[in-house]
Amino acid sequence: MCGIFGIMGGSDVHAARMTYYGLFSLQHRGQESCGIAVNNDGDVTYHKDMGLVGEVFSDTMLDRMPGKMAVGHVRYSTTGSSVRENAQPLVIKYVKGSLSIVHNGNLTNTDFLRKQLESGGAIFQTTIDSEIIAYLIAKERTLSATVEEAICKVIPKLEGSYSLLVMSPKKIIAVRDPLGYRPLCYGVMDDGSVVFASESCALDPVGARFIRDVDPGEIVIADRHGIRSIRTNCGMISRKCIFEYIYFARPDSFIDGISVYRTRLEAGKLLYDLHPADADLVIGVPDSGIDAALGYSQASGIPYCKGFVKNNYVGRTFIQPTQNRREISVGIKLNVLAASVKGKRIVLIDDSIVRGTTMARIVRMIKEAGALEVHVRISSPTFRWPCYYGTDIPSADQLTASTNSVDQICTNIGADSLGFLELDSLSRMISCEGEKCYCDACFSGDHPGNIKQDI
Amino acid sequence: MCGIFGIMGGSDVHAARMTYYGLFSLQHRGQESCGIAVNNDGDVTYHKDMGLVGEVFSDTMLDRMPGKMAVGHVRYSTTGSSVRENAQPLVIKYVKGSLSIVHNGNLTNTDFLRKQLESGGAIFQTTIDSEIIAYLIAKERTLSATVEEAICKVIPKLEGSYSLLVMSPKKIIAVRDPLGYRPLCYGVMDDGSVVFASESCALDPVGARFIRDVDPGEIVIADRHGIRSIRTNCGMISRKCIFEYIYFARPDSFIDGISVYRTRLEAGKLLYDLHPADADLVIGVPDSGIDAALGYSQASGIPYCKGFVKNNYVGRTFIQPTQNRREISVGIKLNVLAASVKGKRIVLIDDSIVRGTTMARIVRMIKEAGALEVHVRISSPTFRWPCYYGTDIPSADQLTASTNSVDQICTNIGADSLGFLELDSLSRMISCEGEKCYCDACFSGDHPGNIKQDI
Amino acid sequence: MCGIFGIMGGSDVHAARMTYYGLFSLQHRGQESCGIAVNNDGDVTYHKDMGLVGEVFSDTMLDRMPGKMAVGHVRYSTTGSSVRENAQPLVIKYVKGSLSIVHNGNLTNTDFLRKQLESGGAIFQTTIDSEIIAYLIAKERTLSATVEEAICKVIPKLEGSYSLLVMSPKKIIAVRDPLGYRPLCYGVMDDGSVVFASESCALDPVGARFIRDVDPGEIVIADRHGIRSIRTNCGMISRKCIFEYIYFARPDSFIDGISVYRTRLEAGKLLYDLHPADADLVIGVPDSGIDAALGYSQASGIPYCKGFVKNNYVGRTFIQPTQNRREISVGIKLNVLAASVKGKRIVLIDDSIVRGTTMARIVRMIKEAGALEVHVRISSPTFRWPCYYGTDIPSADQLTASTNSVDQICTNIGADSLGFLELDSLSRMISCEGEKCYCDACFSGDHPGNIKQDI
Amino acid sequence: MCGIFGIMGGSDVHAARMTYYGLFSLQHRGQESCGIAVNNDGDVTYHKDMGLVGEVFSDTMLDRMPGKMAVGHVRYSTTGSSVRENAQPLVIKYVKGSLSIVHNGNLTNTDFLRKQLESGGAIFQTTIDSEIIAYLIAKERTLSATVEEAICKVIPKLEGSYSLLVMSPKKIIAVRDPLGYRPLCYGVMDDGSVVFASESCALDPVGARFIRDVDPGEIVIADRHGIRSIRTNCGMISRKCIFEYIYFARPDSFIDGISVYRTRLEAGKLLYDLHPADADLVIGVPDSGIDAALGYSQASGIPYCKGFVKNNYVGRTFIQPTQNRREISVGIKLNVLAASVKGKRIVLIDDSIVRGTTMARIVRMIKEAGALEVHVRISSPTFRWPCYYGTDIPSADQLTASTNSVDQICTNIGADSLGFLELDSLSRMISCEGEKCYCDACFSGDHPGNIKQDI
Repeated sequence: MCGIFGIMGGSDVHAARMTYYGLFSLQHRGQESCGIAVNNDGDVTYHKDMGLVGEVFSDTMLDRMPGKMAVGHVRYSTTGSSVRENAQPLVIKYVKGSLSIVHNGNLTNTDFLRKQLESGGAIFQTTIDSEIIAYLIAKERTLSATVEEAICKVIPKLEGSYSLLVMSPKKIIAVRDPLGYRPLCYGVMDDGSVVFASESCALDPVGARFIRDVDPGEIVIADRHGIRSIRTNCGMISRKCIFEYIYFARPDSFIDGISVYRTRLEAGKLLYDLHPADADLVIGVPDSGIDAALGYSQASGIPYCKGFVKNNYVGRTFIQPTQNRREISVGIKLNVLAASVKGKRIVLIDDSIVRGTTMARIVRMIKEAGALEVHVRISSPTFRWPCYYGTDIPSADQLTASTNSVDQICTNIGADSLGFLELDSLSRMISCEGEKCYCDACFSGDHPGNIKQDI
Repeated sequence: MCGIFGIMGGSDVHAARMTYYGLFSLQHRGQESCGIAVNNDGDVTYHKDMGLVGEVFSDTMLDRMPGKMAVGHVRYSTTGSSVRENAQPLVIKYVKGSLSIVHNGNLTNTDFLRKQLESGGAIFQTTIDSEIIAYLIAKERTLSATVEEAICKVIPKLEGSYSLLVMSPKKIIAVRDPLGYRPLCYGVMDDGSVVFASESCALDPVGARFIRDVDPGEIVIADRHGIRSIRTNCGMISRKCIFEYIYFARPDSFIDGISVYRTRLEAGKLLYDLHPADADLVIGVPDSGIDAALGYSQASGIPYCKGFVKNNYVGRTFIQPTQNRREISVGIKLNVLAASVKGKRIVLIDDSIVRGTTMARIVRMIKEAGALEVHVRISSPTFRWPCYYGTDIPSADQLTASTNSVDQICTNIGADSLGFLELDSLSRMISCEGEKCYCDACFSGDHPGNIKQDI
Repeated sequence: MCGIFGIMGGSDVHAARMTYYGLFSLQHRGQESCGIAVNNDGDVTYHKDMGLVGEVFSDTMLDRMPGKMAVGHVRYSTTGSSVRENAQPLVIKYVKGSLSIVHNGNLTNTDFLRKQLESGGAIFQTTIDSEIIAYLIAKERTLSATVEEAICKVIPKLEGSYSLLVMSPKKIIAVRDPLGYRPLCYGVMDDGSVVFASESCALDPVGARFIRDVDPGEIVIADRHGIRSIRTNCGMISRKCIFEYIYFARPDSFIDGISVYRTRLEAGKLLYDLHPADADLVIGVPDSGIDAALGYSQASGIPYCKGFVKNNYVGRTFIQPTQNRREISVGIKLNVLAASVKGKRIVLIDDSIVRGTTMARIVRMIKEAGALEVHVRISSPTFRWPCYYGTDIPSADQLTASTNSVDQICTNIGADSLGFLELDSLSRMISCEGEKCYCDACFSGDHPGNIKQDI
Repeated sequence: MCGIFGIMGGSDVHAARMTYYGLFSLQHRGQESCGIAVNNDGDVTYHKDMGLVGEVFSDTMLDRMPGKMAVGHVRYSTTGSSVRENAQPLVIKYVKGSLSIVHNGNLTNTDFLRKQLESGGAIFQTTIDSEIIAYLIAKERTLSATVEEAICKVIPKLEGSYSLLVMSPKKIIAVRDPLGYRPLCYGVMDDGSVVFASESCALDPVGARFIRDVDPGEIVIADRHGIRSIRTNCGMISRKCIFEYIYFARPDSFIDGISVYRTRLEAGKLLYDLHPADADLVIGVPDSGIDAALGYSQASGIPYCKGFVKNNYVGRTFIQPTQNRREISVGIKLNVLAASVKGKRIVLIDDSIVRGTTMARIVRMIKEAGALEVHVRISSPTFRWPCYYGTDIPSADQLTASTNSVDQICTNIGADSLGFLELDSLSRMISCEGEKCYCDACFSGDHPGNIKQDI
């Protein structure tokens, strides 16, 4: 999971600053590293480093990055190790000038592509997919009239998920993979500037009006002549990631026309239909369980209450307690609101259970605060399979649901009851008509692509 | 407003680390600077600097601070300018060894005390009240048998608000001013360690069981013999700060026996009784308006919904947009959840209106997101007077309520209706029996102390 | 050993910047911490921290320190531990406004003064002598007409060495102790600005013309009326530190009218008279042995040659090699110039031998580079006693000369011969007329003051 | 100009630490950026950044870089702009694993090579020559049995100067261009570790015994079997850079068997033969003029004296004075020793005159300090041509000697007389036998390679 942002700006736009603000609204998609590349009439400068947007960029630094075109990236490492060299944008010089690439997603045929390129003499300086994509574009560009034509020829060679922004000397080109795993949309500002972003929540704050999502397989080109689209690789049924709706995306985003917030409310309602509970209060684990908790409350009529106070100051620099004080860590991040739960029967909503250890601690905390019963409801199906498309999931043996029954999990976490959504709840959450239009491989094991056995 | 924490630890306690965790839970009370002093069998070391707890302290630094006694502080500057020298704890050497002092509150007779001390040859290296208190204790100590006796004699000389922790070579002494403006409580850990904190929310995460609040005027002494109390200065009717309940304190804290969260819920209910509204949804401004919004929803039966997404990554390093992009700033910190408010009549709850400019922007954002009506409800009375006891309030001419009627404010912020709590709602919020037991000077102008005209 | 600098500037002087440059020229007197306080029409701001001048101050920081009066300090810790709080200037508020104090030297009656002040209720926040001096001035000031009068009364209470600059709201007052241990001089700039500095080498670069040394016991006051002098405490025979000439001061400084460089040349000549050698080359250990080596060469006619290359990049951050590679450290800092010494009989000059271990390594390196003989000559007498006036000397049992004869030292360091200056050489180096006008306690044990046995 | 260092270590060597120490001794060759790559049984980690070795590397960081093979680099930017991405080593993955490359020198056919590679689909992420070399090796490697064979084939394609270290998974391979412009040598440690370095001065401190220089055109391979050599590209007459002897290299280094220090002494002697002076003292501009000043003194019999005190604390962070105080800058870096020069006729030696402005200030300073005459002598011929092989020289129109006669320069700098070495002095300095064995293009315009007109 990563976030990308780009702007093809009008006459008085400071593109690097707008990208800085855009990346703030996408920071939830990645906190490991970030970067911005700006194109000042063909002269590209960039800065990228480990850390949050607010840590990596200073006012002075942005001052030194004038120009009307920019792309930016926030990174949550999935492929490539956690080193500064792997931060994006990737900025390269090639036969036709410079390219700056930002990438959200995960290719599944990197080993094959990398070996093929290496046997032709390619050298690699990073371990990120963007470098492979850059090579492929560079090679095709020598045989193509334009960079977008080259990109168009590269798409069939790529397997896996990718939402890309490619900044050439005069254009910003947005690309979404033919199955549309990862989101990508664009909007325009009053002065005609075109803004691309992983999520629509990054458009509002910079003053851009949402236009539409980039379609799966579509290439959208923004330059001084306006916006054009190439749809050669379009037409496949979407396999957008269902987990964007359940957890990744911000609730104020709309992805492929669907409100993330409404999807989560709906998940809470469906959860009540499947797993009602006789209880006094509904509470949600902040932040991702809150919306489904409101939905569960609306459907059930059981009052919604605040159950926790979350400490927003716990960040990257937080010093973990030593072994014998380990419980301090959860307690500082999340304290139970005893005034709320004491003497009550509680429905507790969260978006997923991965290992189960955090949920066990939370249930214990609620009971220690005086709750009589804790009925856990999870607003997604059981999490049992790895993801090859960019979602960071531990190996199957660490997923409690791949080795335990729901009853066993319920016992392990100390809950009084436990319920998950069903696989077919998902199609109702995002109102698929006809064929399944999303990827639920992490719940179903049904992988849409050609995943090699040896991955 | 500041936060203080102290620990008189048992045999295997690393007091600096426990204080580090305690300060994390009090960080909402002050983000400007912080510090910890630790007493290792009489040898005092300390570290303090500008910044958040997570920024100022590293693992290595805590390693270098062994010892079983510690006091810590987070600062929100009210008196004294924003310089490193004004960070606390104040650590001094005096005739009887060392004292480390942390202080939450604001003395109102500092000018008098400072001049009196200077005429006796005192020199001041900071502009914080703690240095005055240190001098007074040092002077009395030469005539007293113990440091607590000296402190007892100092109390009648101090006017204003103060919750103090004083760490001497062998004791930690907690002091709360006779009117009890600022909170202070203590708890014990399983190993017998005694923990003092501004708010009870800092006790749970470090594994301490809440015992009780320090009473107004009380001196509580913790040393290796246990806990003792001096009540010479007790007995006045409390004038605890009502704004702690409305805004300052964390909802999971209990202050003087009353749940902050329940007080806010109750404020929402009282607000509905005074100012009902015909609407579809109740939303609250994060974080401080959320609890009252739940209360308003419960009383009115109007559904509570999430109205905003708050960006938790906007911190001290956030670069403010330039003048012509000013609206970006609010939009990045707080985005309206259009999927929630569009086409709806909204009740919007916040805890207070100070200048009115932020509220005007929020109302506009909600309307631009498609809300039909916005009825603003404020869970406190109109804010009209300055505070001399440590609350950071702009001068009266900047308080919109001191120069405008409620109707004018309503027009100014662009709301469809506007309602505040009444002054006498406050006594119901915190269930005073008989005489008024709190300070509401910022709403009423009724100052409990002898405030000089010229302040 | 520390360095102090002050400026009472003319109309267009940026005093903090001039002090910044002045401190650069005094950096050799202390590398632990530094600071500058600036007085902008009575409003004092200051900045101080651990580190070199170039590390502690940035352009932005100096921009924020406008004003025409400033004092600055570089610190080499002798009293007080190495913590940020002990950095100077010490800036205080007292009954008559503010004082900023910088101090070079070491009081010998601090324990007595500190206890006396504490029994009157004083509190101490640092362990530096300047805080004691500030208290004494503050107390006397309540009984005196002016701050200089107060300082005049304080001088008889202070024992030990001190060169001080005291910046009051309208004056800079320079004070040198009655025995004149530590240097202090002043100069004027073309625009009439008055500049005080520990050494004259700091005057030239800022464009100030050297006027004269402050006399032992003298108080020099610079304010907008010009320069005045109080000589009440003058008249004692100087006991200026001989080690300033031998090692501390920069060779381009003149102290009390005597060129430091010429003194060192002379030491080399005297050394040849006492200890001639039959050799091919004279070399000096950089940087302090070079000047005496030139003098030895001139007196002897033996050619002077460069013997070493010193690595100027080895600074505070240099990572010491692990135990089994310890010899790397000296080799990186100082490499022998084999092309110079190979096959030659060498006279090697250094300013002193303390423990003897470094000299042993240097002699070995020279021999390994092919030198036939190494005759060590030291441009000072044997170092046998501690210093109570601010020179950092290890305890007597670590001084090789206090437990070993010259012959034994010669054997220990592996030299072919070894010679030191005699005690009475010193008076010829600095041309004393009549009575001894310097302190040579570290060589002679003859302490000029009332040093208590128990120090 | 850059410095390179590499180690193929024995069993208990921490290669990164040894490289850290080696780079300290080469820091004079480049202060802009530095880096180390370490190979731990095939697993390569690296760290590089802007700044000095002591700033970029911490103890913790070195701890995280275990392994017995390493290469390191200090950079003085000549090609490529001053950005972090251009720091070396360049670490790449290619068809046969990883390569880490460090490079000192400057290719003269980069434009041609870069375009050729780009037309084959290559992408470039830096602007340094090393990336071109890496591509060429990667391409040849697919057709070669070993990496050294590939390198051997690459050499004929490279024009210009290069001393390289290439670290493959199991070998360190040293390469020096066929004309031997830049130095490169190796030594061995007692445990058999092989150490490569730009200059021999980096061998002594790490405990390595100098073995020999790498010959022009030679490839030296160090692996666990020992040391081998490939001499296919050897045999051309050396064109080693004369400026290494005059200025770049450290005086304690031997380059191609010749002592740098002796060369400079000799230059001073030759200078006296050509331009004697009637004077009282010879002084040198630190650090590069000192050695020739000693030579001039020895030849002339005029005594050598110290003429300046150089401030070693002036580093990268030094804040330049504002325009109207510009003279402060030189004065702080270099102060004249008035006690030495006053009333004397001075011979002043420096290694070169580039723009002439600094020399003009120095002459003025000496006269203001009281010198009667200043006779400037320069230990190299007049500097009139650009360099294409890695020496940082301003454009010809900024070289005072390319537009002014010696007499005019003498007038411009305010000297009483001025003399340079002659072109044919150079061959005597480094004792060429027969044909010219060095490059003096910056003095003569006689470029040894095929330099394109358009550079």
